[in-house]
Amino acid sequence: MLGIDPGLTATGWGVVSLDGQRLVHHAHGVIKTTPRQSDPHRLNLLGDGLFGVIAEFAPDAAAIEDIFMNNNARSALRLGMARGVAIYATARHQLPLTEISARAVKQAVVGSGSADKEQIAYMVSRILAITITAGDSADALAIAISGLHGSGISLTDRHQRVQAAKKDKFSANPALASAIEAALEKQKD
Amino acid sequence: MLGIDPGLTATGWGVVSLDGQRLVHHAHGVIKTTPRQSDPHRLNLLGDGLFGVIAEFAPDAAAIEDIFMNNNARSALRLGMARGVAIYATARHQLPLTEISARAVKQAVVGSGSADKEQIAYMVSRILAITITAGDSADALAIAISGLHGSGISLTDRHQRVQAAKKDKFSANPALASAIEAALEKQKD
Repeated sequence: MLGIDPGLTATGWGVVSLDGQRLVHHAHGVIKTTPRQSDPHRLNLLGDGLFGVIAEFAPDAAAIEDIFMNNNARSALRLGMARGVAIYATARHQLPLTEISARAVKQAVVGSGSADKEQIAYMVSRILAITITAGDSADALAIAISGLHGSGISLTDRHQRVQAAKKDKFSANPALASAIEAALEKQKD
Repeated sequence: MLGIDPGLTATGWGVVSLDGQRLVHHAHGVIKTTPRQSDPHRLNLLGDGLFGVIAEFAPDAAAIEDIFMNNNARSALRLGMARGVAIYATARHQLPLTEISARAVKQAVVGSGSADKEQIAYMVSRILAITITAGDSADALAIAISGLHGSGISLTDRHQRVQAAKKDKFSANPALASAIEAALEKQKD
């Protein structure tokens, strides 16, 4: 599962998989651009970067966070440009794509829909047994973990809406639930 | 010169060139999608469509209209997704890209910054000696003609701002001015 956290300045990505009851971290990174670069150049770096990630790690599916609805139309337009290229990169490779709300990502990884970025990075580190600090890669890995979880809405198949049970939030994928719960147990040590 | 009028539902494109004092129409079309299709599928159709146009007609440069600033952030985000993929398609093929205001496009093609879509389609038909009705292709061809005109702002080279003289609006490209004026003359017949 490829998780993507798109942005014109920084697009985080992370690849994880579920091996039996074990969550496996494959890779993560951030595609960075600067405002000194032109928009076409930035979008080209972003698109080519994601094409490269998909070619190298060959994920079966992808997940993307849904949009924080900025009231500023100009910001929304520019975020949309990055998001469009990210979605194109997954679609071009025929990856099923799931959109997950920021709240659902936090809920799946931290257990609380109001977790902050530090908490997400901490839990991602524990769950995947890697060292990662708060930032776009941690969010992207959290999105990928949530994508495995099976919550969210399929963007590629608009008629399929994967619903996680409300009371038992990990019911959609019991193996993932076990993996996360094992990590939570470790955390208590 | 490839002109692009991007949108998620309809992306118009048109290819024109300047052969001495004659404007030459090469091709035009609209890449259409429907809301019944998923966003990834729509963006994939749009991206692949533009990749195909660029491969077939091998333009040297591209032009895109700048954005009508919608106050609705959601609309701006979705327009941005289409615009991002369109810009990526040009950047991927290393085309210099110019952004032109809607007003400058109208000014270049009709001679008035407040022309409506019917007037644009009419003048594009006359200038290129083709039959085209109002719609996304006509706008895209008008954008391409304006791109040849040399007005607008380079998106690929942010330090280069091509300025058309204010009083003589066709000064940036006298040959194009002659071609358009010839068409205007014909219109009087």
